[in-house]
Amino acid sequence: MGALDEGHCNGEVEGCFELGFEKEVETVAIEDAVKVLLQGLGEDVNREGLQKTPLRVAKALREGTRGYQLKVKDIVQGALFPEAGLETGTGHAGGVGGLVIVRDLDLFSYCESCLLPFQVKCHIGYVPSGHRVVGLSKLSRVADIFAKRLQDPQRLADEICSALQHGIKPGGVSIILQCSHIHFPTLESAFLASNHHGFVKMLVTSGSGVFENEKADIWGDFLSLLKFRGINVDKIHPRDSADKCWCPSQTTSKVGPANSGMTAAVSLILRSLGEDPLRKELLGTPNNFVKWLFNFKNSHLEMKLNGFVLGRMDALKSIGDDNIQSELNLSFWSQCEHHLLPFHGVVHIGYICSGGVDPIGKCLLQSIVHFHGFKLQVQERLTRQIAETASSLLGGDVMVVVEANHTCMISRGIEKIGSNTATVAVLGRFSTDPAFRAKFLQSIPNSATPEG
Amino acid sequence: MGALDEGHCNGEVEGCFELGFEKEVETVAIEDAVKVLLQGLGEDVNREGLQKTPLRVAKALREGTRGYQLKVKDIVQGALFPEAGLETGTGHAGGVGGLVIVRDLDLFSYCESCLLPFQVKCHIGYVPSGHRVVGLSKLSRVADIFAKRLQDPQRLADEICSALQHGIKPGGVSIILQCSHIHFPTLESAFLASNHHGFVKMLVTSGSGVFENEKADIWGDFLSLLKFRGINVDKIHPRDSADKCWCPSQTTSKVGPANSGMTAAVSLILRSLGEDPLRKELLGTPNNFVKWLFNFKNSHLEMKLNGFVLGRMDALKSIGDDNIQSELNLSFWSQCEHHLLPFHGVVHIGYICSGGVDPIGKCLLQSIVHFHGFKLQVQERLTRQIAETASSLLGGDVMVVVEANHTCMISRGIEKIGSNTATVAVLGRFSTDPAFRAKFLQSIPNSATPEG
Repeated sequence: MGALDEGHCNGEVEGCFELGFEKEVETVAIEDAVKVLLQGLGEDVNREGLQKTPLRVAKALREGTRGYQLKVKDIVQGALFPEAGLETGTGHAGGVGGLVIVRDLDLFSYCESCLLPFQVKCHIGYVPSGHRVVGLSKLSRVADIFAKRLQDPQRLADEICSALQHGIKPGGVSIILQCSHIHFPTLESAFLASNHHGFVKMLVTSGSGVFENEKADIWGDFLSLLKFRGINVDKIHPRDSADKCWCPSQTTSKVGPANSGMTAAVSLILRSLGEDPLRKELLGTPNNFVKWLFNFKNSHLEMKLNGFVLGRMDALKSIGDDNIQSELNLSFWSQCEHHLLPFHGVVHIGYICSGGVDPIGKCLLQSIVHFHGFKLQVQERLTRQIAETASSLLGGDVMVVVEANHTCMISRGIEKIGSNTATVAVLGRFSTDPAFRAKFLQSIPNSATPEG
Repeated sequence: MGALDEGHCNGEVEGCFELGFEKEVETVAIEDAVKVLLQGLGEDVNREGLQKTPLRVAKALREGTRGYQLKVKDIVQGALFPEAGLETGTGHAGGVGGLVIVRDLDLFSYCESCLLPFQVKCHIGYVPSGHRVVGLSKLSRVADIFAKRLQDPQRLADEICSALQHGIKPGGVSIILQCSHIHFPTLESAFLASNHHGFVKMLVTSGSGVFENEKADIWGDFLSLLKFRGINVDKIHPRDSADKCWCPSQTTSKVGPANSGMTAAVSLILRSLGEDPLRKELLGTPNNFVKWLFNFKNSHLEMKLNGFVLGRMDALKSIGDDNIQSELNLSFWSQCEHHLLPFHGVVHIGYICSGGVDPIGKCLLQSIVHFHGFKLQVQERLTRQIAETASSLLGGDVMVVVEANHTCMISRGIEKIGSNTATVAVLGRFSTDPAFRAKFLQSIPNSATPEG
């Protein structure tokens, strides 16, 4: 197999944006701010796992907000194609040129209230006019210009809609966004509602031209064509609703202002991204982001197992005759130390109850999971730490499976939105006997898959 | 909202690869070759829809094969992190460091037999060793180096496996790929098997280190963790199987060599991508690709409706009292004239049977769909043409919905793998009465969604 002699992008598979960003003053400023944040969390910025974290975070934030630098006209220009039969008059649903719809575009954006990424499933409709259509991929590219900024769902929908209306000048544009924002748990709230590892969801719409009136018949056509795709249009968020802000950071208890050095660092990050930290919607953002980070502060505490309350025994399930006990689907939250982005999912713990080992409660195991989760982590270490702590209580035969969604896998350069990771740790007889492993793995139900 | 003053990528949202590629001799050579192919199909390379097609195809092919220029070591370097507790000895499934799995990575690659893109769902496992783990996103980036080449599923799996084994030096690596290749219909075969709008599927595996032996217990652990994700491991393709080549171009009837100018042009494209057209697996590729293109040759034929056989009437469904007739899920195949890549899916046709109009058969409507599909097209035009032809037979009240998956949307720069498009054309009473549109749209079942 041959290879071109002169590669323009040798080794730079992460994309040119990173190449360009790396040495810019804005990137360096964000790096310095991230170091302040890490130090505020009690971390050693020189330890190996964290050395490149400031640069990674800076590049990710600049990549993730590159929409500020892009122009709609540069994308749409040259992608308008003449098509006969598309009427200028659009009173009749565009005549024979009808509606054009692109569905299920996966985007992600950054929440302007808390700086965490949120996922967007974007559906776009437009009615061609003036005898021309636009290349289908351009609808996605234009949407991405506005997704790659600090956003709120309704404004994102409105900006995409307005940009397409002005860029293509069609009969009308309709936008529906299904947005999913990660929860915002604290160690305390995670215990109170142990199973909220879903997402805060919001469904918003925007329309222009023939779609400007939300009661227009053409909305019915558009929604009918989306209903095939399993979208529940009854859940559309009313534009004039009182609960304007969807971000879960808004409902977290308002503890006073966080470390002022850290909030100043976040303000500096906002400015370096090209934003105005004094914009109304951004005023609370530094404090919200620092509050989020503080959930994962390095506490230097030894785990006090004696302090945990033993839970109900009837929650345990015994597998076959080998006395394998298991606790499945213990939720966890953690923060990736390489990217300062959340990862979350479920933990499954199996252990063997033989002479001298009593089964222990779900509550204690959930505590162990949260204790190791709420800090800067990597999934492999989290898995090992849970296994080791559990084994000290459970007699040494322990198997742990952690299934997680990593925000860094969906929002960084690779954008692998459906991907999911699993890590395994095995101790004692689980490491020597494949039959024990197989029995435990078979006990994990399909529904263990974290919501994507 | 502010904006950075100096954008490095103004307007170049398509990525720097295109920027770099645009003026290279290889790109220009591919452009010229694509012009030869378009002329061979009887097309006018200067008509507006085709003017930029040679450049688009050249950029897409070079982007899609950029893996030839990338090196594994540049990606893995700097992404290996120390983790305590991961044993060097891996005889016991890595000790407490166990298995690390990344599931459901969506990739795409180009089939070396026919030059069409194929989709890959990639699952990677490895057993950390030497007290170090690799950043999770690097597994995806390494896989993509080999996906972005002309490939065959088994070799792709083997190359990813070998690269990770040498790059990370773990206890072992396991790879499972679920590959989906578009069918290769001709106008004739499309009529014979009207519902094969699915894909040719192939499931392959590769293993090294502790995974080298396919019967090793650790494969059981890996497969158990994939079974949660709905993968049927019984369907794994045996490595030493006789039916080596999965590409449907191999089973298409061997009509003699195609236009030699066109096959020479494809050979030149292969060479410009950095491949050796004399490599054994590529010897038939130019002929296969030209055969595929010839399905979409501009025939300049007027449609001879008299030649069509009227089909069974009992296939028709009447909606309510308004005498709306519909034919749903008529499969279609077409070739996007902007990218020379297939798009395919289903067509739904509704019409009103009032005085003087008799319902017509499914076979006739399917013929109309195939007639307009098998050429260089855009989806909007296809929709309009089907509506206009149907209306000349059906009395003027016609509604057509085309639902399609565009290979260019998944394999070009934007890589929106789950996305799907719908276009609508309405004539007569369907354009003036929303109730008719709503009734027809409601009759389209959810299952109409083309397979993704």
